[in-house]
Amino acid sequence: MAVTQPEATNLTTPQSEQNPSQISFSSVKLQELPHLTDYLPNLQSLPSPLEKNRFFRPSEGFYLTPGDVILRQIVYDLSGTFSASAPHQAYHRAGPRDRVYFESSQIRAAIVTCGGLCPGLNTVIRELVDGLWDLYGVREIFGVTAGYRGFYEREPVRLNPKLVRNWHKRGGTALETSRGGFDLEKIVDAIQDRGFNQVYIIGGDGAMRGAVNIFNEICRRKLNVSVTGIPKTVDNDVGVIDRSFGFQTAVEMAQQAIGAARVEAESAVNGIGLVKLMGRSTGHIALHATLSSRDVDCCLIPETDFYLEGKGGLFEFLDQRLKENGHAVLVVAEGAGQELIPRTDAQKQERDESGNLVLLNVGGWLKSELKKWWQRDHANELFTVKYIDPTYMIRAVPANATDNLYCTLVAHSAIHGVMAGYTGFVSGPVNGTYAYIPLEEVSQAKNEVNVKDHKWAWVRSVTNQPDFTRIQTCRTT
Amino acid sequence: MAVTQPEATNLTTPQSEQNPSQISFSSVKLQELPHLTDYLPNLQSLPSPLEKNRFFRPSEGFYLTPGDVILRQIVYDLSGTFSASAPHQAYHRAGPRDRVYFESSQIRAAIVTCGGLCPGLNTVIRELVDGLWDLYGVREIFGVTAGYRGFYEREPVRLNPKLVRNWHKRGGTALETSRGGFDLEKIVDAIQDRGFNQVYIIGGDGAMRGAVNIFNEICRRKLNVSVTGIPKTVDNDVGVIDRSFGFQTAVEMAQQAIGAARVEAESAVNGIGLVKLMGRSTGHIALHATLSSRDVDCCLIPETDFYLEGKGGLFEFLDQRLKENGHAVLVVAEGAGQELIPRTDAQKQERDESGNLVLLNVGGWLKSELKKWWQRDHANELFTVKYIDPTYMIRAVPANATDNLYCTLVAHSAIHGVMAGYTGFVSGPVNGTYAYIPLEEVSQAKNEVNVKDHKWAWVRSVTNQPDFTRIQTCRTT
Amino acid sequence: MAVTQPEATNLTTPQSEQNPSQISFSSVKLQELPHLTDYLPNLQSLPSPLEKNRFFRPSEGFYLTPGDVILRQIVYDLSGTFSASAPHQAYHRAGPRDRVYFESSQIRAAIVTCGGLCPGLNTVIRELVDGLWDLYGVREIFGVTAGYRGFYEREPVRLNPKLVRNWHKRGGTALETSRGGFDLEKIVDAIQDRGFNQVYIIGGDGAMRGAVNIFNEICRRKLNVSVTGIPKTVDNDVGVIDRSFGFQTAVEMAQQAIGAARVEAESAVNGIGLVKLMGRSTGHIALHATLSSRDVDCCLIPETDFYLEGKGGLFEFLDQRLKENGHAVLVVAEGAGQELIPRTDAQKQERDESGNLVLLNVGGWLKSELKKWWQRDHANELFTVKYIDPTYMIRAVPANATDNLYCTLVAHSAIHGVMAGYTGFVSGPVNGTYAYIPLEEVSQAKNEVNVKDHKWAWVRSVTNQPDFTRIQTCRTT
Amino acid sequence: MAVTQPEATNLTTPQSEQNPSQISFSSVKLQELPHLTDYLPNLQSLPSPLEKNRFFRPSEGFYLTPGDVILRQIVYDLSGTFSASAPHQAYHRAGPRDRVYFESSQIRAAIVTCGGLCPGLNTVIRELVDGLWDLYGVREIFGVTAGYRGFYEREPVRLNPKLVRNWHKRGGTALETSRGGFDLEKIVDAIQDRGFNQVYIIGGDGAMRGAVNIFNEICRRKLNVSVTGIPKTVDNDVGVIDRSFGFQTAVEMAQQAIGAARVEAESAVNGIGLVKLMGRSTGHIALHATLSSRDVDCCLIPETDFYLEGKGGLFEFLDQRLKENGHAVLVVAEGAGQELIPRTDAQKQERDESGNLVLLNVGGWLKSELKKWWQRDHANELFTVKYIDPTYMIRAVPANATDNLYCTLVAHSAIHGVMAGYTGFVSGPVNGTYAYIPLEEVSQAKNEVNVKDHKWAWVRSVTNQPDFTRIQTCRTT
Repeated sequence: MAVTQPEATNLTTPQSEQNPSQISFSSVKLQELPHLTDYLPNLQSLPSPLEKNRFFRPSEGFYLTPGDVILRQIVYDLSGTFSASAPHQAYHRAGPRDRVYFESSQIRAAIVTCGGLCPGLNTVIRELVDGLWDLYGVREIFGVTAGYRGFYEREPVRLNPKLVRNWHKRGGTALETSRGGFDLEKIVDAIQDRGFNQVYIIGGDGAMRGAVNIFNEICRRKLNVSVTGIPKTVDNDVGVIDRSFGFQTAVEMAQQAIGAARVEAESAVNGIGLVKLMGRSTGHIALHATLSSRDVDCCLIPETDFYLEGKGGLFEFLDQRLKENGHAVLVVAEGAGQELIPRTDAQKQERDESGNLVLLNVGGWLKSELKKWWQRDHANELFTVKYIDPTYMIRAVPANATDNLYCTLVAHSAIHGVMAGYTGFVSGPVNGTYAYIPLEEVSQAKNEVNVKDHKWAWVRSVTNQPDFTRIQTCRTT
Repeated sequence: MAVTQPEATNLTTPQSEQNPSQISFSSVKLQELPHLTDYLPNLQSLPSPLEKNRFFRPSEGFYLTPGDVILRQIVYDLSGTFSASAPHQAYHRAGPRDRVYFESSQIRAAIVTCGGLCPGLNTVIRELVDGLWDLYGVREIFGVTAGYRGFYEREPVRLNPKLVRNWHKRGGTALETSRGGFDLEKIVDAIQDRGFNQVYIIGGDGAMRGAVNIFNEICRRKLNVSVTGIPKTVDNDVGVIDRSFGFQTAVEMAQQAIGAARVEAESAVNGIGLVKLMGRSTGHIALHATLSSRDVDCCLIPETDFYLEGKGGLFEFLDQRLKENGHAVLVVAEGAGQELIPRTDAQKQERDESGNLVLLNVGGWLKSELKKWWQRDHANELFTVKYIDPTYMIRAVPANATDNLYCTLVAHSAIHGVMAGYTGFVSGPVNGTYAYIPLEEVSQAKNEVNVKDHKWAWVRSVTNQPDFTRIQTCRTT
Repeated sequence: MAVTQPEATNLTTPQSEQNPSQISFSSVKLQELPHLTDYLPNLQSLPSPLEKNRFFRPSEGFYLTPGDVILRQIVYDLSGTFSASAPHQAYHRAGPRDRVYFESSQIRAAIVTCGGLCPGLNTVIRELVDGLWDLYGVREIFGVTAGYRGFYEREPVRLNPKLVRNWHKRGGTALETSRGGFDLEKIVDAIQDRGFNQVYIIGGDGAMRGAVNIFNEICRRKLNVSVTGIPKTVDNDVGVIDRSFGFQTAVEMAQQAIGAARVEAESAVNGIGLVKLMGRSTGHIALHATLSSRDVDCCLIPETDFYLEGKGGLFEFLDQRLKENGHAVLVVAEGAGQELIPRTDAQKQERDESGNLVLLNVGGWLKSELKKWWQRDHANELFTVKYIDPTYMIRAVPANATDNLYCTLVAHSAIHGVMAGYTGFVSGPVNGTYAYIPLEEVSQAKNEVNVKDHKWAWVRSVTNQPDFTRIQTCRTT
Repeated sequence: MAVTQPEATNLTTPQSEQNPSQISFSSVKLQELPHLTDYLPNLQSLPSPLEKNRFFRPSEGFYLTPGDVILRQIVYDLSGTFSASAPHQAYHRAGPRDRVYFESSQIRAAIVTCGGLCPGLNTVIRELVDGLWDLYGVREIFGVTAGYRGFYEREPVRLNPKLVRNWHKRGGTALETSRGGFDLEKIVDAIQDRGFNQVYIIGGDGAMRGAVNIFNEICRRKLNVSVTGIPKTVDNDVGVIDRSFGFQTAVEMAQQAIGAARVEAESAVNGIGLVKLMGRSTGHIALHATLSSRDVDCCLIPETDFYLEGKGGLFEFLDQRLKENGHAVLVVAEGAGQELIPRTDAQKQERDESGNLVLLNVGGWLKSELKKWWQRDHANELFTVKYIDPTYMIRAVPANATDNLYCTLVAHSAIHGVMAGYTGFVSGPVNGTYAYIPLEEVSQAKNEVNVKDHKWAWVRSVTNQPDFTRIQTCRTT
C-alpha cells in the first residue's frame, strides 16, 4: 500500500566509463514520505502560523520546499567495484514548511515514551511542548504516561512550557516509561476517543515497530491523525540516522567507568579492570568509549568473535600486556561473546519479548574465566580483576550539551514535519543534516558496526588489539 | 604551481531536465592532494609497516585507495535554482594506504602547537606520538615548544608513549604555545638542520597560513619533508571541515556558564544574566550553547546585527521578558556588536597582528548600557546584571569524550596521510568522514554561521528571539 | 535586657598549679538562649508531635535536654601562658526536645533569603519545608520572596514538600533574594498582619544584624513569634560556627578555576595565571582553594599585607618562579591589597551600604601591574597573564554532598530549636556538633584567618610563599 | 612496655556539685606519644631546618610546644548521669616543633600504601614527598610498591617533587597496593638493609595493626627509625580521628549513584532504585549519602537490624511508599543484613583474612527478595528494581577539594611529627584540629555509627524511615 511503502522516484541516466575520479553519478532517488492527504485527499492546507510570530518574521529562505534534500550515500569507492548507475538516494530535509495541515486551536498532541531510559528523553519532551506551544500556538499538549499502555490504562497529563521548564536538566523520563503493553486496537481507540490528532512516539526499535502498526491502523481507519517516531536507543543501533540522542552522553559516562577501571588496574599488581558496557547487538558505546578514553587494551563487541585460549586468544594477549605494563583494561559490550558462555537447558529456552535468546552476563562470566585462567597458569602470583557494570549510572544522567542540541533539533524537526501533514515518518540527522525518513524504513534498519569497512579496520588499528583470527596460529607455526 | 594549487579532475556529463527529484547529477571533481613525488619524482614507495603489526593483520579492505572519496556538497535544492551540471566535489578519504614513502627508521617527526589554547591539544599530540610509535615504528619524535619560534629558538623535546601517556587527561598544551614568532627562513632552515622529515602543525588560521608558506618553501627547496596541518580553533571558524576539535567541549563548558547566569538571573528581582562567549568573527559557540542549554532568551553573534533602542530592539525585548518572567539571560559572542561600541581615536588605530581592528569588550559595554537603560526608564525598580566571562575556564579544560575521539581519529588520519607521501594537506571530518583537504584550501576557507540558510532560519525560530530588522517598525505602525 | 543579652551561668573552682598536662579546668559557662517564655511566662508547653510519627518512635535518648552541651574552646596551650581559671564556654546542642511550645495546626512559618547567592540556599529552604511538614505536621509554610522587602512589598508564596522536592538540585534561591530593603517597623507589622509565628531568616552578616533587630522588636511587642537565623556567607566570615554552608562547594569550584589558570600558565612562555576569588574581608576561600589545589605559587588574602617591588616582594618572587618553572599561579582574595591600589578622589568617598570604602578590583589592578613590571624589566621576553574571575560560576552552583548534608542538619536544627520555644538564636556546627548560639553573639562575631595562630603559620609553610615581611631586607643585607 | 603503651598523666581535683551548668571539670589526661629518645636516650636534637627556609621565616608562635593540646571529649551531658571527675583526655596538636631529631642529609624516607583504594592516596604520597623535600630538604625519598610485600620483594622507587607533581589529580595509588604480604621479620630487615629511617605507612585497620608490630619490633631492635601511620579507610571506620581522607569524595560519588537510582525509580511504574554502598561494618557512607542526597526513602546500615516481612517491616514500608509516590529508593551498606541472608554450609565456613565470616552480597539478595515479594503480593502490577553497585566508580576517583586539603594537612602533620622524633603515632583531625595519637590506640579503636546517641536518633528522624522495632506490632494492635 502506498502509505506504508512510500514510493521512490528515480530516473536513470547513461553513465560514463569506470575510470576512477572520472565518473558521473546518475539520478536521484528521493525517499517520499507518507502524507495525510494520501488518504484524506480533501484536507486543506493553511498558511504557517509562524508568519505571525511575535518576535521574528520568516525571512527569505526560511521555509523548506519539497526540493530540499540530503543525500544518503556520500562515501564512494570510485575504483573498479563502483557502480555509478545506482541512483543517489536522498531524503527530505527537516524544517518548517510554508503550508500546514493543522489549525493550531484544533490540535491535540500526545507524547509518549517507551522502553528503557536514555539521556535526553526529558529534553525531547520539553522541546516538543515548547515548540508546539511557542511556535505553533498549540495549547492542548498531553503526556501519555508509562509507555504504550498509558494510552488506554491511564489519564494523560496536561503539559505546558512552565511545567516542563527544567525537565531537560533531569535524567530519565518525567512521563514514566515501561516495556510492552502494546495493544494496537486499544491504543488507536484511545487516540480516537481522546481526540489526539498528533502522536509523538519516542522509543526504541520495538516501539518504532509498534508505531508503524499504529500508523497503518490510523491509515486504515482514515483518521486525521499524524504519527511520528523519534528513535531512542542508547545503544545507537538504529539505522539510517547518524546517531541517536543520548549516545554521546552515554559514551562520556562510559569513559568515566573506564577511567575508574584503569585506576583500579594500575593500582594493583597484575590488575585487570573489566567494564561491561551497554550494547545488546551492537558495540557502538564500547567502541566509541574505547577510542575516546584511550585507556583500553582490548574492546570486545558483538559484531566480531573472540576466543580466550590459545594462540592469538585473549589470555595470551593479556599475559603479554601484564608482563609489559603490569595491568590491562578490558571493555566488553553486553552482547559480545554470547556463543562462548555455557547455557543451562533453561537458558536455552529463555527468550526475551522479541523472541531472541536472553543475553547471558558476559561480564560476570569473563571475570570468572579470568580468575580461573590465572589460578591455573600463574597460581603463585598476585592477580586482581575489578569488574564494573555502570549501566544505570550511564543511562540515568541528563543529556550533555551535544545531545541536548540534538534533542532540541530533532523535536523541532518532528513538529515541523507533523504540522506539514507528513505522517508515518521519523526525524533524525542524516550525514549531519536533519531529515525525514519513512517510519517503516527506520523500523527495519539496523546500525551495526561495519567490520568489513575501511573505517572499522583502521579504527581497530588504533586500539592495537588482537584480531582473534585463528589464521595467526597457522602463520606463526 | 601544481604543488600548491592541486588540480581537480572532472568530467561533465549531459544532464536530465530540471524536474525536482528527477534529476541526474554530473561528474565528480576530486580534490587532488600535493604529494612528495610531485617534486621528488624518484622517491620510492615501500610496503606499509602495518603489515608486520604484532597484534592484528590488515584484513581485506583495510587499506584505502585513491578511489575512496567523500562528497563535499550533499545538501541540494532540487527545485528551480538548482544547477545539476556543476560537478560533485569530493575529497580523498583519510586512512592507511598500502604503500608508504618513509622508512620507519629514517623518520624524524616534529610536532608543534601554535596560538591559543583549545581542549584536545594534548590528545592530538599524544595520539600523534602513539600512532607514529605503535603503528609505524617511529622512534624519533620531537615536540617543538612555544609555537613557531620554538623551531629556531629552542631545543626540541624528545617524546615517547610513556611520557605522553596521560597527556589527554590534561588541558592546555604540554608543548607550550605562543602567538607570532613566524620566521619562514629560520623555520625551514631549522627543519633542515634538525633533519625533520615529517612536520605536524597544530594551530589556528594564522598558523595554517604559515604552514602553507612552510610547505611552499619546502617544495621550492625540494626537501623530502612532508608537512601537514591540524586546524585548532575553539571558535570553530575553520572552513571545509565539519567542526574543529575542542568545540563540543567548549559548548559543554559554555553551557555551564549559561546555567550559572540563569541561576543568578532567576534569584534576583529583574535579574539579567549576561555571558560573553568566545567567537571573534563567528558565533558558533554562542549559538550551539544557546540551543543546548535552552536557558537563553537572546543570543547575539557577529554574523547578524542588533540594536538596543527602539521598536524591535534589545531593550524592548528585555523589557517584555522581565515583565513576563522576572528575569532574562543574554549570550553575546565576543565579536558581536563591534560597530555599536564607541571607539576612542586610539582604538580606531589599534590593530591586531592580522591588521584587523582590535575587538572591544562587548560584554562590559552591554553591561554598562543595560544599567544606563534601566536607570533611565525604571529608576525606582530593583535591577541586577550579573556578567560572566568564562573564556579561560572554557578553553583550558581537557577534551570531553566526543572531542577526544575526534582528536584520536584526526591524529591517526594525519599520520596515515603523511606516511603515504601526501604533503601540504589537512585532515578533518567532512560530512562525518575523515578526509584529506589541500592545506591551501583550508587556510582560505572560513566557516561562518550562514544566516541566509534554511538551517539558521529555523534554528533561530527555536530561540524565539527578535530578528532585529528595522522593518518591524514599519509593519507594526 | 535579658532577652537580647543572654546570661551565662558559671561557677569558678580553685585551680591546680600550672604544670603542663597537670592542670585542672574550671567551671562551665553555658551560653543561655532567649526563650519565648522569657517575656511570655504563661506560655504552655506540649509533648512533641514526634511522638506520633508514623514510621519511627523516639527511642531512649532521642530527645536532648538542657544539659546537653558542646564546649567552645577545645584547643589549649597548657604551658606558662595558660590561664586555667577561665571558665569553659559551652553551647546548647541542637536537636529535638521532648516539649514544644507550638501546636502544629497553629503554626504559620515564614522563610526568607537575603543578600548574595550561596550554594545550598535552596537545600536549606527545602529542608525547612520538609522538616516542618513531615516531622511537626506544619501545613502553613510560606516563602517570603526577594529578601527583607518581601515581607511588606510582596505576597508570600505557599510552600509544600511536593513543590520544593527538587530544589536542592538547583543553585541560587527559588525565593529570590535582594540586598537592603530592611524596614523594621514594616517587617514586624507584616509578621503580625500575616500571622507568622515562626520566622526563619537565611542571610549574611547584614541580614543577621537585621534579624537581631526584628527579634528585639518582637520581644518589645511581646509577640508569640520565634525568630531564628541561619548564617549564609560564601566567604565563611561568620564567627562562632565552624563554617557556613556552601563554603566547601565554593572551594571545590574555586579549585577548578585555579586548575584552568594553571593550565593557561603552563601552556605559555612565562605564563602567569591570576585568579580572583571571593573574600571581602577574609581569605578563607582563597586559602582553602590554595591548599586543596596545590597548584598555587602565591595566595594573597586580606588578613596579611603584601607588596610588589623590592626585596621579598611579589615581583622578585615571581621572577624566581618563572625562572625555575616557566610559569606561576597567583590567587588573590577580592579584599586583599586594597591599600595598595590607587584610589581616585571619587573612590575615596564611595562607600557601600555598611559604610565601608568600596572594594577596588584587585584582580584587574594586579594584572595591569604585572604587565607594567614585565615590560619594564623584561621588555624583550614573552610574557602572558591570564586573569580569571570565576565569582558567579562559583556561587551559582548547587551544593555538593558535604554542604547538602550541612544544609539538611542546620535546617532541622533550626526547626527543633524553634519548636522548643527558643528564639533569637542561630543554629550551626561548633567543633563539629550542631549547636544553638544567641543570634546577637553571631551577629557580632567575625571569622578571620588568624594569622597569629600556629595553624596559619604552619599552613603557610605548606604554600611555601613569601611572608612579605620587610625584615628580610635587613637580614639578607 | 612504655614505648608501646604510652602513659597518661593526670591529676584529679576536687569537684563541685552535680548541678547542671554549674559543674567544674577536672584534670587533663594528655595522651603521651612514643619518642625515639624513649629507647635511644642519647639522641641529640637539632634546630629545625625550617629556620633556613628561602621564602618565609618562622614567626612568633610558629612552632608548637608539648603544651599545645586538643581535647578529645567535648560533648557533655551536664545533667545527672554526668561524672565530672573523669579527667579531660587530650592529644598533642600536630605541627612543626623547633627541635628535630633527624639531619636532613641523613634521612632516607620510605612511603608505602596498603589495602584497597581510597580517594586521596596519591595526594598523601605527593604531599609527603613535597613536604619532606621543600620544607626539610630531604632528598632520599622512596616509594615502596605493592604494599607491605614491596619492602622485601621489590626495589623501592625514588620519588621527587617533579615526578609526583600531578599525582594528586589521579585516582588510585601510583605506588600500587596489595592486601596481605605482611612478614614482620622480612619487613624490618628490609628497613634496616635499605637504611630507611622514616617509614610512612598509609593503610587500613589491618595495615595499622601491622604498623604497630613494625614499630614494636623497631623498638626491640632499638633502631633509629621513626614509624608513623596514616589511616586510609573509605568506610570511615577508624576511631579517634574525626574522619579519614577520601570519605567526603566517596559520599559525593555515592550521591551520584543514588541520583541515578532515583531517576530509574521515578521513570518506571512502581520503580525501586536499590544502591549498595561500601561499609563492611559501619554505615557512614550510606548514612551520609542518604542525608546529603535526600533522595533516599530507606537506608540500611550494619549497626542496626532490619526485617522484611510483617508489621513495621521493609515490605510494608515500601508498599506504602509506592502507593504514595509511585517509586522508592533504597540504600544498603554492604555489611547490613548479613544475618538475614541464608548461608550455604560452605559460606558458613568461609572466612576473610581477619577470620570474620565473608560478607554475602546483600544487594543481590535484596533485589531478589523484592522481586519475590512483589510477585507474591502484586502479581499483576508492573514492578521494576534497578540495582546499582557503584563501588569501584566511587573509590577510584581523585579526591575532591575537601579531601585534598585533608590529605595535604595530614601529610604535613606526619612529617612534622616524625621530624620531631615522635614514632609509633598517627596523624589525624580530632574535633577539627590535627593531632598526634598513639598508633596502638588508633589500631584498636573503631568508629561505628552510634545508634544510641542523640545525633543518630534525630538524624534518623530526618530520613523518616521505619525503626524496625517489633514493638510497633504490639503497640498498634
